[in-house]
Order: sequence, then C-alpha cells, then structure tokens
Amino acid sequence: MKQYINRDKIYVEDLGKYANQVVSLYGWLYNKRGKGKLAFLLLRDGTGIVQCVMSKGDVGEEIFNSAAEITQESAIKIIGKVNADERAPGGFEIHVQNFELVSKSQEYPITPKEHGTTFLMDHRHLWLRSKKQNAILRIRHTIIKAIRDFFDGEGFTLIDAPIFTPAACEGTSTLFETDYFEDKAYLTQSGQLYMEAGAMAFGKVYCFGPTFRAEKSKTRRHLTEFWMVEPEVAFMDLDGDMELAENFVSYIARCVLEKNRRELQTIERDISKLESIKAPFPRLHYDEAAEILKKENTEFIYGDDFGALDETVISSQFDRPVMVHRYPGAVKAFYMKEDPEDKSRALGFDMLAPEGYGEVIGGGQREDDLDVLLAKIKEHDLPQEAFNWYLDLRRYGSVPHAGFGLGVERTVAWLCGLHHVRETIPFARLMHRLTP
Amino acid sequence: MKQYINRDKIYVEDLGKYANQVVSLYGWLYNKRGKGKLAFLLLRDGTGIVQCVMSKGDVGEEIFNSAAEITQESAIKIIGKVNADERAPGGFEIHVQNFELVSKSQEYPITPKEHGTTFLMDHRHLWLRSKKQNAILRIRHTIIKAIRDFFDGEGFTLIDAPIFTPAACEGTSTLFETDYFEDKAYLTQSGQLYMEAGAMAFGKVYCFGPTFRAEKSKTRRHLTEFWMVEPEVAFMDLDGDMELAENFVSYIARCVLEKNRRELQTIERDISKLESIKAPFPRLHYDEAAEILKKENTEFIYGDDFGALDETVISSQFDRPVMVHRYPGAVKAFYMKEDPEDKSRALGFDMLAPEGYGEVIGGGQREDDLDVLLAKIKEHDLPQEAFNWYLDLRRYGSVPHAGFGLGVERTVAWLCGLHHVRETIPFARLMHRLTP
Repeated sequence: MKQYINRDKIYVEDLGKYANQVVSLYGWLYNKRGKGKLAFLLLRDGTGIVQCVMSKGDVGEEIFNSAAEITQESAIKIIGKVNADERAPGGFEIHVQNFELVSKSQEYPITPKEHGTTFLMDHRHLWLRSKKQNAILRIRHTIIKAIRDFFDGEGFTLIDAPIFTPAACEGTSTLFETDYFEDKAYLTQSGQLYMEAGAMAFGKVYCFGPTFRAEKSKTRRHLTEFWMVEPEVAFMDLDGDMELAENFVSYIARCVLEKNRRELQTIERDISKLESIKAPFPRLHYDEAAEILKKENTEFIYGDDFGALDETVISSQFDRPVMVHRYPGAVKAFYMKEDPEDKSRALGFDMLAPEGYGEVIGGGQREDDLDVLLAKIKEHDLPQEAFNWYLDLRRYGSVPHAGFGLGVERTVAWLCGLHHVRETIPFARLMHRLTP
Repeated sequence: MKQYINRDKIYVEDLGKYANQVVSLYGWLYNKRGKGKLAFLLLRDGTGIVQCVMSKGDVGEEIFNSAAEITQESAIKIIGKVNADERAPGGFEIHVQNFELVSKSQEYPITPKEHGTTFLMDHRHLWLRSKKQNAILRIRHTIIKAIRDFFDGEGFTLIDAPIFTPAACEGTSTLFETDYFEDKAYLTQSGQLYMEAGAMAFGKVYCFGPTFRAEKSKTRRHLTEFWMVEPEVAFMDLDGDMELAENFVSYIARCVLEKNRRELQTIERDISKLESIKAPFPRLHYDEAAEILKKENTEFIYGDDFGALDETVISSQFDRPVMVHRYPGAVKAFYMKEDPEDKSRALGFDMLAPEGYGEVIGGGQREDDLDVLLAKIKEHDLPQEAFNWYLDLRRYGSVPHAGFGLGVERTVAWLCGLHHVRETIPFARLMHRLTP
C-alpha cells in the first residue's frame, strides 16, 4: 500500500473554511451512484459525509472507470474543488479533479437492509462507521467533555478513584472478583467513599471512570461496565447537592444542543425535549412521589424503593427531570445521613429523567457523625475493620458533606432518545456480550 | 453537628477577589501558634492555606480561648476581613472577626515529624491533606485536563475502550482475570486495537482510562492499575505520529507551567526542566541510540530492547524528551508495521523522558496489510480467531494509520520530579498495596 501522510489532509467537517479551493480528502466510500458521464461518490471520513461529483470529461476515462468499480467502504483519496451548494447536506460538495483508490474493500457485511441487533453487535467494530452510531458517539463525546468542563470550571479537583478495591461498598453479590497476588480484589462499583476522603483534602472533588456490576440482568438499562462521574463537596448539604445536580445536568443538555445539532438531526431526536432541561428542576418529597403513584394506581407499596415502572409514572408528570428526596432510610445505603427532622428518612435524592429513562443520578448528604455511622455499619452487618479508614474521616475533622453519581450511558440514552444503552458506549459489555 | 450550607462559602484560592471584604471560610486547622493576645491559625480548605490572625481584643476572651484549644485538622469556620499582605503566602491574610468549631479532631496521626512510606501509604486517605500531596494531585489534574483538551481541540473523538476483554493483546502472564458469567474476562492492558476500529470510523480518536498489569514488579515505575491515553489516526504515518506526540507532550508541559506555578514551588520542582520541553524533540534511529550505549560502555546487546538503565543513558544526552524509532521488529508487538525500507525494522517509536524517567510514550504505525498481519499473528503464535474482528479492519478499507500510548502516572512523576509513581495517583495500587 502506498504511504500517505496527513499534511495535506482536510476533514469534511472543516470544508467550510475551504470554499472554492482545491483540497485533498482521505476517507472511505459510503455510497455511490452514476448517471451517464457523471458519478456521485459519497466520501465518509469520520467527521462527516460529502458528495463528490466526478465527470468523465474532467478526470478522463481511465480514472472515471476505475471509480465506477470501487466497492462500499473502499479507502479512497479525492482531490477536488469545494463548491458551496445549499441543497447538499453540510452545504458543500466536491467537484472531483483526481481520484485514487487507497485500498479496495472486500464485500462489506453491513448493507442498507435491516440487520438484527446480534449481527450488528457482533460487527460493532464496523457498525461504528454507520451514520447513526457515529452521531450517538459524538454526542457521548460532548456529554463527557461537558461533565469534565463543568466540574473543572467550578473549581473541582479530579481525584481518580481506584478500580481495585478490597471490600464492597454495597453488598458483594454483584461484584466482579479477581486474584490479586494471592489475595482477592473486587472491581469498583462506586468511588464515593474515596471521594469523601478527597473532599476533606481538596474541598471539592470528582472522579470519573468505569464502574462494574456483575448483575444477571438483561434489561435495556444495564451494562456490566459503565462510566460514572461522582462529585463530592465538603461543607455542602442536601439542598446544595440538588442545586449542584440540576445545574450540572442543565449544562450537559445545553452543551449537546449547542454542539450537536447535526447529530441530533441524524438520530431524529425531538430537540424540544432537550430544550426543556433547564434548572430549577421540580423537587418532590418521597411522600409526594408516593402520592402520585397511589393516584395512578400502580402496585407500589409505601416504604419501598421505586421500581423502573414507578419512576416512569413519576417522571411522566414533568417535562424535565424531577428530584425525589428523603426516601425511607431503610431502602438506602448505610452512609446516607439521617434527616435530623425525621430519623426514619435519609437525606438522599434520586434524579429521574423524563420520557421513561428513570434514575440518572443518585446522591445525598453523607453521615458525618462517627457514632451514628458505627451503629449503621453494625446494623447493615458490614465488617467495621474494612471501613476503618473511612471512619477516620469522621475522627479527624468531620464536616457536613454531600455528593452524587451520574451514569454516563443512561444519560446518553436519555439525551439521544435511545431505547437501549448498548448503543451509548463504543464497545458495550453485557451479560452475554464480551466481544468484539 | 450543626448544618452548614455552602452559599456564603469562599475558597482560599479566590481570596484575591475579596480584598478588604469580610468573608466566611470553612476548612480545617492546618497549624496554629500563639503570641500573647494574638493567635495565628492556618486554615486549609483544600484550595490553599491562609493565615488567620485573631486578637483577643477583637473576638473576646471566650472565643479566643476556645480557639486556643483546637487540635490539628479540626474543622472550623472563620469569618474575617481579607487583608492584602505581601509577606503572606498567597498574598493575603484574614483578620478574624468570628470563629466557630465545626468538629474537633482526635489526635491527628500525621505529624510534622518524618513518617515512613508504609505508614503514609496506610494513611493515604489523610496523607492527601498534606501540602505536597495536594500539589502533586493538582498537577495531575492539570495534566489530565491538558491531555483531553489537546485531543478535543485537535478534533479527535473520544472512543472509550472496553475494560473487559476476551483475549490478550500482548501475552497473558500479566493479565488480571475475572469470572464473567461462566466465561473468563481479562482486564485491559491497552485500548489500541479498539482505537484502530475507532480511527476507521471517526478518523481521529482517543481513549483514556485505567489499564492493568499483573506484573510481579516492585520498581518505582510500576503500578498494577494506571491511566493511559491512546490516540489513533487514520491516514497517518510514523513521522506524523512522532510530530503529534511531541506537540502533545509540549502542550502538557506548557499547561503545567501556566497553571501550577504555586504547586511546582511547593514541591520544589526545577522549573527550567519543564521550560525546555518544547517541540521539536530529537529523533534517533535505533542504531544511533545503540551507538550512544556502545560509547558509554553499557551492557546493552545490539538487537535487544532498551532496559531502564539504557533509557537513562540515552535520554541523559538531551535536555528534552528524545524519540527513538525503528527498533528491530523482533522486540516489538505483532501489529507494528514493517519498515518498507528495511523489513527487519518496525515503524515504531518510544519517547524517553529526560532525568532518568524513561519511556513515557510508546507507539508507531500499524501493519495495514492483511496478509502480512496474518503471517505475524501466526509467527507470534496468537489465536487468529480472537483477532478476526481486528483483521476485518484490513479487509474493509484498510488505510495507513498510527497512534501511541502515554502513561499518565509516569508523566506526572516526571513533570513533578518524583522518585516513585505511588504519589502520582490518589490511591495507588501496587503488588502489596490494595488499601485504603
């Protein structure tokens, strides 16, 4: 194969800067059609797709005929003039002056016909090239960048949590275990406890990395590995936490609207759903949410946590996310702070996304009293020894503090309006899916 | 404990905006000393440390005496006036009007006396509060942000690689293994192969996440989990790859110099070492590097890969990183492209950092010819079946492409001038270290 360097390479997304100039494009043939002495080649380079118009008169018979023979996904180089054309998607097309085949593709397995999901997931390394998958992962990129930009801009310090952990934060049945030099290690389910240590050292911190759940669950909301961002702030209470969460999610939605208009159009997302994601978000006490469920005659039992269906019913009452707070302490984790005004309640909240997307954020204020926390650990039958370092945070300058976790893939699914989380991450890992 | 909300909270790093104003500071007592009717409290809030001057006459006897009794790392609130003072670190001190104890700390285990490394690592959750660790992890934050900003700014799309992988990229002896629903999964050592699929779909991509090595190694350069960024670009050759790498590393150094002057001072880093990290970097053919080693009389045997000592000898010849390219193919991975001008050579490069920090980047151009790659897989005794999806990238529109990987912790160690990588990550995981 001929060597190509990238010094003369122009990307499709930058064509606007080169109107009426002759440029070199490197990419792959997305599609082609012919009409007499004209050939229309759709060149895809990962940043966009542009129509390249080739006339036999301009390029000569040899090049014209060689172009007629190329197969879908063959790698190509095109030199041509950038013409503004309002009818063209992206506003430009290329008037071809020269064409080169870089490498011919074998018969491409993904065709315009309908393929089953298993087939597409088996070919994920190629499926990524399709328009819709490209658009979704570009939106994922925007969301992840927005997450980091938001916290960096608010003065948070990134404190990466460890992936290998010695003990479970919440139960052990859903943990992945690995041998660790004659010991056992577990893959993290949450960086929260480490973030609490971080908040006492840096004031405001966040971690952002992959987390793992070995749940035998095949629902459209579950992945075995998924990315989670977890901010934690010293001297912050539940109200401050909810305010942070609503500003954060509003910022993410705004960034997607600003940067991904074209992608949202490609996946046919109703833009108005994103435009309504604006702080403040409604806040419901658990009892108020339970009241809604009672009115709607669901099977919900007062005192329980909400199921996926319950979340859908609650969130469908609003055009933007809703935050439900002060759940019964019994259904929440040991580290949640008791509500001083009603000790049966935890100062936690869940943010439920609209359109049936359910919980995207869970968080709250943490128990900061050493004795209460010791009692909770006992009550939950957890090994105190394993939490000794965590208890130190209450021994040496304990302060009120709060934080939350947001799951990236559920957020991508929601903002993109996707049915299943498997398309929200480049290489999804599911109960029965470890390849490619 | 009294509830505190964060609405009136000012951070030490922002004091410059509040000169001559009365502010509320929330934090921890870093140190204190008294002198008659004056007390000097050093308040630390994670963003900085400020001296708060309290006079008995101003605050009254009760408050003054209560302040005298507080212990190191107790949580405190101070209300006071911000006074510009050139002699103060940071340029400001606080003239205290009111003082409140939020919570008293038990006797803090980390004292100004020297502690052993094991003790400090056992107390990592508290050690993070010390000045030097705070500075290092703030520089880490800058480096990570610089990494993402650089690639985002250059039009790369973030394509997160999976953590769970079915097969090994380079050997299996250093892999962490986990049960995966009656199957086996391995924790990733590199996202490169996935990035190659990404580059064919998006043009320019990068992944950035934790990677894992189960090496029984206790050197100062090894962690069992470490963060790595791996860009990959379609239509790029080895020269373009090295150019990308030197611009990238220069950008990171520039960001640290711009944003972390104070932190570099805290850790007493020689700034001039960072100022010389400017592209272009010297490029050495493997043979030229071997020639240096011969002259310096090391035990290096021509044809081998370089050891840590060899890297130090080579890099000590230069004031900035050096890139060694075209190693013998035999010592490099199967996916490296053969040099068309000398088939015994691989079109790969390593970037060696100065001051003995060794390899911070490894990368190169990938084999893009299906038949050569098939032969290489056979030659390296790898299971072809497992690489079938990867081979697809050569079947459907293969193009010249290249990329590299940069290890975050080694980069932090180098830019901070640290002896051991364990201080470059919030919660280091080492062969004998899984806690806290």
